[in-house]
Amino acid sequence: MLSKSDIKYIQSLQHKKFRDMHKAFVAEGEKLVQELLLSGKFEVTGVYAVSDWQIPDGNTFNKTLLNVVDSAMLERISGMQTPNKVLGVFRQLPEKPLPMAEGFTLLLDDIRDPGNLGTIIRTADWFGIKNIVCSETTVELYNPKVIQGTMGSICRVPVYYGDLKRYIQQQKDIPVFSAVLHASPLTAFKKPKDMMLVIGNEANGVSEPLRALSKGISIPGSGNAESLNAAIAAAILMYACTT
Amino acid sequence: MLSKSDIKYIQSLQHKKFRDMHKAFVAEGEKLVQELLLSGKFEVTGVYAVSDWQIPDGNTFNKTLLNVVDSAMLERISGMQTPNKVLGVFRQLPEKPLPMAEGFTLLLDDIRDPGNLGTIIRTADWFGIKNIVCSETTVELYNPKVIQGTMGSICRVPVYYGDLKRYIQQQKDIPVFSAVLHASPLTAFKKPKDMMLVIGNEANGVSEPLRALSKGISIPGSGNAESLNAAIAAAILMYACTT
Repeated sequence: MLSKSDIKYIQSLQHKKFRDMHKAFVAEGEKLVQELLLSGKFEVTGVYAVSDWQIPDGNTFNKTLLNVVDSAMLERISGMQTPNKVLGVFRQLPEKPLPMAEGFTLLLDDIRDPGNLGTIIRTADWFGIKNIVCSETTVELYNPKVIQGTMGSICRVPVYYGDLKRYIQQQKDIPVFSAVLHASPLTAFKKPKDMMLVIGNEANGVSEPLRALSKGISIPGSGNAESLNAAIAAAILMYACTT
Repeated sequence: MLSKSDIKYIQSLQHKKFRDMHKAFVAEGEKLVQELLLSGKFEVTGVYAVSDWQIPDGNTFNKTLLNVVDSAMLERISGMQTPNKVLGVFRQLPEKPLPMAEGFTLLLDDIRDPGNLGTIIRTADWFGIKNIVCSETTVELYNPKVIQGTMGSICRVPVYYGDLKRYIQQQKDIPVFSAVLHASPLTAFKKPKDMMLVIGNEANGVSEPLRALSKGISIPGSGNAESLNAAIAAAILMYACTT
């Protein structure tokens, strides 16, 4: 049985203000919650599941954290249109200092769409990318739409936030490229051993200060679309630069 | 001033049943409506705009079709959370016979997510892809989320629906590839002059009957994500096969 204040607390985590305050976040659905529980990367503080939810094999979480709820209650605490059996509340990771760039480092400049950020993290995981550094204006990692969009890759790809201009300036001798509309084509690109790649905002592209610190690189296309979606552009560039 | 039946008609177009019945669809937002009006590809039957909406330059649509509405009314007839100045109602194109495959033809097998279909069409437009053929089970082209996701590319990329198995069998001597998880890597792929590429369902991949008619092709990745989003996989393959 959930108390009123439990319900209010879980619901409040749909909002950034309360996620920041409580340093917690929500993940939903059998597959995602299972992956988060098994990975052990994020401390779990509560699991709210309908009675036919199966505790994943190999799971070591403290079973006193499990609350069996009916589907009406799950719907009430869920942020999804069609909740899927289980919702978990997890602790956010403590902030860490930015990593040194090595291999392929992805820099996200003011990515606002949570679905795009989630998909970019999932794709980065596919390509084995070790670090993503986001501008402070990029959508928050713990936004529920980001979390759901990562499909569990949030357990594997470290995502940092910081001042990208300063970050680039600190990484000496590592070339920086920006995805832009008209520059040298990706098809002629010789990928260096280490590199940083900046993906810009959905509407405005890479911001001028970062553009000034980087070489442009373009995805060639013979068609007429004005632009590519940011997650699509990021994926094509990750593919071309890491395989 | 809109009549009750006008309002009901426009609202009804959020649902497939009524789009099928009226052979019409809705597009929203300044940029998209402008592009649809200017392209002339789809006959417009009504434009509903707030008073500060600017009729795009060079536009030839019959101005008696313009209805100035207040923002409360726009919100009422809109399917969007935050309507953007204008909504247009357009006629669907008559169904056309499937085209012969030539160059790069994209086949979509049971793509269910409207956002994915919209993004795939937009990306195909970027790469100048001439034809997309969808299985009958693929989400409907005129779904508002598809239309919005194309960002106007619906004016340029022809999208057909039909039986993909029969379609493949009719295109003699054109090689067919399927995006699958474990097959020869895309990095070793020699692209033929003409080809068909099948992208499968978000959850289940390419269906067995089509898999049996095609060679598998995989996007190599050194990471741990279980899969890529269907629109992401399609984009990487379109890039690799057309540039």
